[in-house]
Amino acid sequence: MASPTNPPVTRLCTHTLTSLHYRDADLVEDLMGKRTFTEVMLMQILGRTPRPVDLRITDVVLIVLMEHGLTPSAIATRLIYMSAPENLQGAVSAGLLAVGSSFVGTMENCSRLLDRIIAAAAPDSEALAIAREHKATKSAMPGFGHHLHKPVDPRAYKLLELGRAESELAGDKIRALETLSKAVDDVAGRPITINATGAVAALLGEIGVPTNVMRGFAVISRAAGLVAHIVEEQQSPSGRFIWDTVEHAIPYVGEGGKA
Amino acid sequence: MASPTNPPVTRLCTHTLTSLHYRDADLVEDLMGKRTFTEVMLMQILGRTPRPVDLRITDVVLIVLMEHGLTPSAIATRLIYMSAPENLQGAVSAGLLAVGSSFVGTMENCSRLLDRIIAAAAPDSEALAIAREHKATKSAMPGFGHHLHKPVDPRAYKLLELGRAESELAGDKIRALETLSKAVDDVAGRPITINATGAVAALLGEIGVPTNVMRGFAVISRAAGLVAHIVEEQQSPSGRFIWDTVEHAIPYVGEGGKA
Amino acid sequence: MASPTNPPVTRLCTHTLTSLHYRDADLVEDLMGKRTFTEVMLMQILGRTPRPVDLRITDVVLIVLMEHGLTPSAIATRLIYMSAPENLQGAVSAGLLAVGSSFVGTMENCSRLLDRIIAAAAPDSEALAIAREHKATKSAMPGFGHHLHKPVDPRAYKLLELGRAESELAGDKIRALETLSKAVDDVAGRPITINATGAVAALLGEIGVPTNVMRGFAVISRAAGLVAHIVEEQQSPSGRFIWDTVEHAIPYVGEGGKA
Amino acid sequence: MASPTNPPVTRLCTHTLTSLHYRDADLVEDLMGKRTFTEVMLMQILGRTPRPVDLRITDVVLIVLMEHGLTPSAIATRLIYMSAPENLQGAVSAGLLAVGSSFVGTMENCSRLLDRIIAAAAPDSEALAIAREHKATKSAMPGFGHHLHKPVDPRAYKLLELGRAESELAGDKIRALETLSKAVDDVAGRPITINATGAVAALLGEIGVPTNVMRGFAVISRAAGLVAHIVEEQQSPSGRFIWDTVEHAIPYVGEGGKA
Repeated sequence: MASPTNPPVTRLCTHTLTSLHYRDADLVEDLMGKRTFTEVMLMQILGRTPRPVDLRITDVVLIVLMEHGLTPSAIATRLIYMSAPENLQGAVSAGLLAVGSSFVGTMENCSRLLDRIIAAAAPDSEALAIAREHKATKSAMPGFGHHLHKPVDPRAYKLLELGRAESELAGDKIRALETLSKAVDDVAGRPITINATGAVAALLGEIGVPTNVMRGFAVISRAAGLVAHIVEEQQSPSGRFIWDTVEHAIPYVGEGGKA
Repeated sequence: MASPTNPPVTRLCTHTLTSLHYRDADLVEDLMGKRTFTEVMLMQILGRTPRPVDLRITDVVLIVLMEHGLTPSAIATRLIYMSAPENLQGAVSAGLLAVGSSFVGTMENCSRLLDRIIAAAAPDSEALAIAREHKATKSAMPGFGHHLHKPVDPRAYKLLELGRAESELAGDKIRALETLSKAVDDVAGRPITINATGAVAALLGEIGVPTNVMRGFAVISRAAGLVAHIVEEQQSPSGRFIWDTVEHAIPYVGEGGKA
Repeated sequence: MASPTNPPVTRLCTHTLTSLHYRDADLVEDLMGKRTFTEVMLMQILGRTPRPVDLRITDVVLIVLMEHGLTPSAIATRLIYMSAPENLQGAVSAGLLAVGSSFVGTMENCSRLLDRIIAAAAPDSEALAIAREHKATKSAMPGFGHHLHKPVDPRAYKLLELGRAESELAGDKIRALETLSKAVDDVAGRPITINATGAVAALLGEIGVPTNVMRGFAVISRAAGLVAHIVEEQQSPSGRFIWDTVEHAIPYVGEGGKA
Repeated sequence: MASPTNPPVTRLCTHTLTSLHYRDADLVEDLMGKRTFTEVMLMQILGRTPRPVDLRITDVVLIVLMEHGLTPSAIATRLIYMSAPENLQGAVSAGLLAVGSSFVGTMENCSRLLDRIIAAAAPDSEALAIAREHKATKSAMPGFGHHLHKPVDPRAYKLLELGRAESELAGDKIRALETLSKAVDDVAGRPITINATGAVAALLGEIGVPTNVMRGFAVISRAAGLVAHIVEEQQSPSGRFIWDTVEHAIPYVGEGGKA
């Protein structure tokens, strides 16, 4: 355990009077002008030099997670920006706090199910058992279902198509998701959408992102998406309109203010 | 002004039952597997198709802003992660709240000075006036000086070198920074470091990022850096050690607990 | 300056194996069961034993700042709670980030004007100068005006009434606000509302709260208000309704999704 | 379910041109100058007029949760304040994000165990079963144990003493905690500290605070504590010292910067 004589260490960054280093690389000599943001981000997060396939998968995942219109996350960012425009980072932080159980939690939960299927002696039976458990407890199956996109979530379909086309990937996470999908359909008696969250879990798993790091990719990508919402808010403000609209739509019920 | 009959609009995203669109592009058909994260991010933020030079500049700026070791931002993220590991997004949000006036505020303030110099009839005189104002009021010159890297901040040097090599950029922001640098040196009577913040302001300005959007690039990039800190914290926790170290280093003075 | 041999110190809290101390007080012996939350909060913030008048003023200020219905702050908290209900503190934090320049910044700016009037040799002339400056630059006068409550903000009226009734207060901040109010009315040619923010600035000033600490009282009070919004959200959820309402009210304009 | 024709409602606040109402009360007439902050907070959160005993319990709980020195929460707040002093609310928000599973999560988990014991036909057996489960899985028993205060956490002892002295409380939560404590000691074979978190869970339960609202009291109280840390930071800054201390204490290991 860490102590004054046995302190924790960091491998992420160091600096001298004349240089800065990200892990073992010289920032100025090795990275600037030579590597992309996705490349350096992945090097820092995974602790290894990313392969071209890692970059392709990461880029497509980050793009998919960036934006979905006026979500709770984006609305929160716009309202906070309106209230404290001197403080852009606070508006982004507020929106990022939405990246919780309701959305990315399902990504992680799906990833854990995929691991369980991969580890099982009989993957098909394991997938069926999982699907039956969720049906019995009427709990949502993480990675499946979408209130809007059905029967096919076009993002999930494309993500899996791109993932399958990568010969360098082992393919076991994608296959586990397919196995689970078949079991889910069988138990439901009808086709259930694989959603973007489920496909992202499989693809990030394929390039070796641990389950408890996956949420970080949603955070990074959403940060970029929220900055775009702030730029739009600077150009054509919606905050006051949202405030008025919500205040008007949700009535007060009580005795206050009555004659 | 926005009203129920004249609502604000969004251009960022829409969706149909079978498709998702980022601005005018079809996410699945036009972007996934074809564009990088930097490309789509820039398209969403700037509202135009980025040129290759825009991507090169953005990538190098994002890389430079990602990481500087155990900064206040990274320490805050690690401590919050230790306290609420179920909530990665909260730890990143906490660290992002450090992206305030002390660091990125100087980027914006530097950018405003560059605009002032560019707009002036006599840029050299304007730069001298700016340098003298700051000396007279003993206020820090935004974009100049570094407590560690001097006389040259290697990141700033490289950023400007890369910027000057791009023939598609107008070069006026970089020249304004050079003009300001000469004035600052003259007024100080010795060479003063152009820091990374100053060089970033010039480069983002060159690709058309408005001053009040610049901070967003620091937020996006730092989000990635902070995720890497969380991954390291998962692998070799430092939070408890930081807590003990700080508690021990800062003594309580008062009457409490005395016999 | 702080250094390893001259570290900063804390006076807020210490603990031994058998006791905990807030400043010089023994938590268990001196505070628990004997002092109210307002009392201990004020002792910790101001570094002195609060007088009864301090408690009365603080209580009324905190009550006034707690709640104003479905504000941007409350809407943001509800949306984040919906997205991450496992993480109540994130929802409150998101809402607190709204406590920025648009609202409490005006409290601080008003407080600074009051100090300027008190420090002036001729307070009436100073107040007139301030009112004319703001009119000339068409900038909002901090502490004055309300989009809803006019000509009288009932909270401000009551706050000032309660403040004037306290014989232990010096009264100079309240008088400075009255002087400013008269000047604002004269320059405008009509009565302009003193708003709650202006009255709070005067009252907190009367009990010795420094200007740059005032915002903290809004943060504490709003934290309580936002917890009440979360409780209501637990009982009758509004988050999904807000999301749908806003998404529907703000149309996408662009080429995406067109045939 | 909420819809445009069946919208959610709010009972928390409404306003007219001349009045503001918190629930059914008139803010100016009924609350200002007549009620304390604790009283109004509790009225808003619980939706009922609090009894004197509710106020006494809430005050002592809030006091106990306010402060524990240079905790991760307080350190994060100080570092963020140093980075963005224009943005006090961001520094408090950052610190509040520490109010997660490691600390207040245990309060909620303890509260759930108390409910389980109360609901059981044989409370003693249920408590023993709980204690054995936790021992078998080597998981921490929520509400028990403290790394510093043992064998007795003086705050917990006092909280329970104050709670037992209140004749208006049913006492069932406190008794359930005592039952659990006896079982925990029996299973451990030695006395295990009831910590402040456990006692707070029992006391908040006694006044009718639902388990999933309890965390809110920690958030409100800690907000006040963090404001006091910011005031101390304004008076004698520690942020830079903390940064330097941590950076120095945690070495970089890697190849970067080596000759």
